[in-house]
Amino acid sequence: MIEKIEQRLRELIPARDETIFEAARYSLLSKGKRLRPLLTLATAAAFGVDPLTALDPACALEMIHAYSLIHDDLPCMDNDDLRRGQPTLHKVYGEAMALLAGDYLLTFAFEVIANANLGREQRLQIVKTVAMRCGAPGMIGGQVMDIEQTGKEIEEETLMLMHEGKTAALFTACLECGSLVAGYPPTPLLQTIGREFGLAYQFQNDLQDVSATAGKKAGGDAANHKQTAVTLFGVDGVKERVRSIKKSIDEKFMGLPNQGGPLAALMQQILT
Amino acid sequence: MIEKIEQRLRELIPARDETIFEAARYSLLSKGKRLRPLLTLATAAAFGVDPLTALDPACALEMIHAYSLIHDDLPCMDNDDLRRGQPTLHKVYGEAMALLAGDYLLTFAFEVIANANLGREQRLQIVKTVAMRCGAPGMIGGQVMDIEQTGKEIEEETLMLMHEGKTAALFTACLECGSLVAGYPPTPLLQTIGREFGLAYQFQNDLQDVSATAGKKAGGDAANHKQTAVTLFGVDGVKERVRSIKKSIDEKFMGLPNQGGPLAALMQQILT
Repeated sequence: MIEKIEQRLRELIPARDETIFEAARYSLLSKGKRLRPLLTLATAAAFGVDPLTALDPACALEMIHAYSLIHDDLPCMDNDDLRRGQPTLHKVYGEAMALLAGDYLLTFAFEVIANANLGREQRLQIVKTVAMRCGAPGMIGGQVMDIEQTGKEIEEETLMLMHEGKTAALFTACLECGSLVAGYPPTPLLQTIGREFGLAYQFQNDLQDVSATAGKKAGGDAANHKQTAVTLFGVDGVKERVRSIKKSIDEKFMGLPNQGGPLAALMQQILT
Repeated sequence: MIEKIEQRLRELIPARDETIFEAARYSLLSKGKRLRPLLTLATAAAFGVDPLTALDPACALEMIHAYSLIHDDLPCMDNDDLRRGQPTLHKVYGEAMALLAGDYLLTFAFEVIANANLGREQRLQIVKTVAMRCGAPGMIGGQVMDIEQTGKEIEEETLMLMHEGKTAALFTACLECGSLVAGYPPTPLLQTIGREFGLAYQFQNDLQDVSATAGKKAGGDAANHKQTAVTLFGVDGVKERVRSIKKSIDEKFMGLPNQGGPLAALMQQILT
């Protein structure tokens, strides 16, 4: 399934030698795990339709993920030099081009959704869902909290809200879009699975950041004076929370068709 | 009509004391001429529907204009300190917040369109039109050319293409959206009017930049080592081109319903 995603992403962004497309391809087509599109397809499959029906919205969600990483890496944000083991976009193409490539990927994502081979109402619901989850109540809101918290003591409630915005909102959008493609309005149960999965995923990332791997500069968060789940709960506390969330998600899968089918399998795989 | 636009913009962006909304309101609700929403409404009226039918797409286009100014003013782009006579957003809220406020306004614009009180097909066509005109083939493409040309000798053809992207594409989107709201797919004639108007408007701006007014730092383009129509054609050459474009647009109005009605009147007013 991941090959279909890679192929479609390559098709959607023109391979022309204009800098904006080169820059977008540099970030979008770099080695990524494609978790967001995979979760979108898996949700569509869990709800009983051919997962490839959701391919274009899934690719749009990956574009939005790529845009958020590009802008997040900029000097005025996290000022990261490396991403997925290679220099960040602004290190290669300059800040201005990185800013514009992010803007382009965000804008183009909505064009891809509006052009998808789906019913009109489905496409509109997907535009609304994605815009809302990636906007001020979601991803951007989480980024704002992150900026405002940097260098300060953070409370547990704030940390959770921040991760819900920064990380979980886009995962939730993936599940919602998969559900919409299959013809089902997203349920609160599905949305809760998205939120909890996002938190568990972020906690695992924080654990990894401490032991430093994943092609990122070691201890990036610490270097940025950011508090994470680990600084707040300790390594064991975070591990315990991940276990607890996993259990909660596993119980919720029971409420989905086929006990979550491929979505449950994928989430369990990602979280181990 | 402009009061309706101001009122709707204030309604759409929540007046909550979260920084992201404050920042968005700082830029969006600052004293602007609202040319893009006014042109959108005037086009809808020219095609025979109540202009207020187009109010939400018109406001979305103003949000996109605001986002483009915010990102354009950032230090990595034009590095402008003043906009519409007041400090630019990043001077007041910092670069990170300005980046995010721009991202938010762009994202939210699509949500506003998808939620507008219009037919499904109309909303989808408007999403597609706006995304395309504001994307790599349009506004962002123009910005990229601008960056790549800064400090270099510019050829006439490149300058025109750059202005078509940076300035004319969004004006064209306004006309297209007004037409779509009225139930008419945009014609090449209407698109040409948008493009020509955008060029004439940009030329007039370049003339103003030379004589320095409009709340911007005097001679901003020159300070940024940017070539403009004035450096290429001279003041008289640019004035001659504006006259010629105006004449061309006036002839094209004859091909619109009611000879362009309120749209013709508004464009003539803006260009004098």
